[in-house]
Amino acid sequence: MEQKYREIFERINQSRRILLTFHKSPDGDCTGSAFALYYALKSMGKSPEIVSPEGLPFNCQFLNRDNVVKEGIGEEDRYDLTIVLDLSEPKRLMKGIDVTNRERFGYVINIDHHITGSGVGDMVVQIPEASATAEIVYDILKVNGVPFNRDIAKALYTAIMTDTGSLRYSSTTPRTLMIASDLLNYGITAWEISREVYESEPKARIILLSYALSTLRFELNDRIAYMGLTLDMISKAGATDDMTDQFVNYARSIRGVQVGLLFRETPEGKVKVSLRSKDEIDVARFSIQFGGGGHRNAAGIVLSCGLEESMKKVIEALKEYLK
Amino acid sequence: MEQKYREIFERINQSRRILLTFHKSPDGDCTGSAFALYYALKSMGKSPEIVSPEGLPFNCQFLNRDNVVKEGIGEEDRYDLTIVLDLSEPKRLMKGIDVTNRERFGYVINIDHHITGSGVGDMVVQIPEASATAEIVYDILKVNGVPFNRDIAKALYTAIMTDTGSLRYSSTTPRTLMIASDLLNYGITAWEISREVYESEPKARIILLSYALSTLRFELNDRIAYMGLTLDMISKAGATDDMTDQFVNYARSIRGVQVGLLFRETPEGKVKVSLRSKDEIDVARFSIQFGGGGHRNAAGIVLSCGLEESMKKVIEALKEYLK
Repeated sequence: MEQKYREIFERINQSRRILLTFHKSPDGDCTGSAFALYYALKSMGKSPEIVSPEGLPFNCQFLNRDNVVKEGIGEEDRYDLTIVLDLSEPKRLMKGIDVTNRERFGYVINIDHHITGSGVGDMVVQIPEASATAEIVYDILKVNGVPFNRDIAKALYTAIMTDTGSLRYSSTTPRTLMIASDLLNYGITAWEISREVYESEPKARIILLSYALSTLRFELNDRIAYMGLTLDMISKAGATDDMTDQFVNYARSIRGVQVGLLFRETPEGKVKVSLRSKDEIDVARFSIQFGGGGHRNAAGIVLSCGLEESMKKVIEALKEYLK
Repeated sequence: MEQKYREIFERINQSRRILLTFHKSPDGDCTGSAFALYYALKSMGKSPEIVSPEGLPFNCQFLNRDNVVKEGIGEEDRYDLTIVLDLSEPKRLMKGIDVTNRERFGYVINIDHHITGSGVGDMVVQIPEASATAEIVYDILKVNGVPFNRDIAKALYTAIMTDTGSLRYSSTTPRTLMIASDLLNYGITAWEISREVYESEPKARIILLSYALSTLRFELNDRIAYMGLTLDMISKAGATDDMTDQFVNYARSIRGVQVGLLFRETPEGKVKVSLRSKDEIDVARFSIQFGGGGHRNAAGIVLSCGLEESMKKVIEALKEYLK
């Protein structure tokens, strides 16, 4: 892999204008990976640009201190090199970023840690063993001798921390913790980042959490726990759609619960269902019957009926599935 | 410090019956430190005993797989060596453990990472730089060449994880993460422990959390956020007193909030107030006027009036204090 990492820097050295972009519904990993590369490239005298298909997650806004993230590309914009981060499926790219158009986007490198998908562009670096795309970016910068600074370390730490659920998920390896340890040597502390990521919650989000928890119901001897959020609750809390991220984990976190679910009305008149399971229970396989899918322990479904009806349908089917 | 660590093992080698004990209201750090030493001593052919003054925290019960924790000492019990963990104040010891009684408790070693207090016993190892007492236990075992196994690693990882808020608090140093990384080499995974500690919540606790969040109120332009729990709510949720641990952090975690508070009625007819502040705000100093105290960012008060009156008094005073 070292050879490939050196090639990436040869490409960077040959380029001036460099586009950094990532997937829709951006998370902390793609955001942090982009900022780490941004500051590394800046220090090398390059002109990098970060373009996000859909803003930044609420708990990563602090990384955009210099206000550099653009939400679109101008008609005239041309790049020598495009680096696509944390993306495994072309359809998750921003509309308008056509990576087959070399004239506009130059050479295209895709850096990703997903297990599925085949990547996009001229060079694909896909390492599923990495806890986060940021772990790969860390290696690329280290192999090429880039001097680390506070900005780079902060962005990478944020990315790894958010993508591993605060260094808790099964993706967290001894190496992940070694990297986290090393990053704390560059003028950042775990607390300053945790504070931004986990202790700067929008007030509306905590109020919405209280509404969500108040709807908690159980089925099948508490092996299923689920919650339902109406559009009314979201609006009453003054919240936005994206703020329900992670709520479903409260249902799963209960002892004995094997599947936790969150049902949520969307402005489009649908119901989005998030499913989280423990261990061997495969909610992706379960979700297929409703046209949904995902990973074994984290899947999603979209239904076109009302909230109560959606709950009834999915919970009844789930009870059968878990029998 | 290495010399002292070797001395500890000289003492252990000279002893057969060894008592491991810790502070009242036990947490993950003292519990995990005790289990790590228990399994290390067992492997050395010793007869260690863990005695807890007050059971085990709900999220550390899984460490007691072999059901070895005793909740008291028999009249006839005599020890060659007593190791007191994570304790800085003699008054936090279990009633009946009189460490000055050498005939019953033998030589007494105190291992602790608190900043305050002077410790107890014949040898005090107090290292405030350590993120957890378990970090010191790790060093002691390593210096003395104890072969690590899954049980030791699991106990130490649990201790460090819980005492650093999942490796988030300011106490988390590069070294803490190096140790965590090393521990994952002994047959444990971060997820299996996270699952036990953070994903095995008693149902009653999540229901009680929903009650607590539903009482959230704000003051002083959202610089203060507070919640109140009645005995009635605790009983309706089927919860026990100790399950409110960490609830106050939800109030503090909100953006802009400088002090988060939880008011809670106790069966003794009092009101316990937990205060958590961000950064420079010193809630220990604030609490003194109500006879309370603690650390700069985490303090407590006990009041003898009713819940609403307690809230009124403390919030009014806090508004003055923050002006």
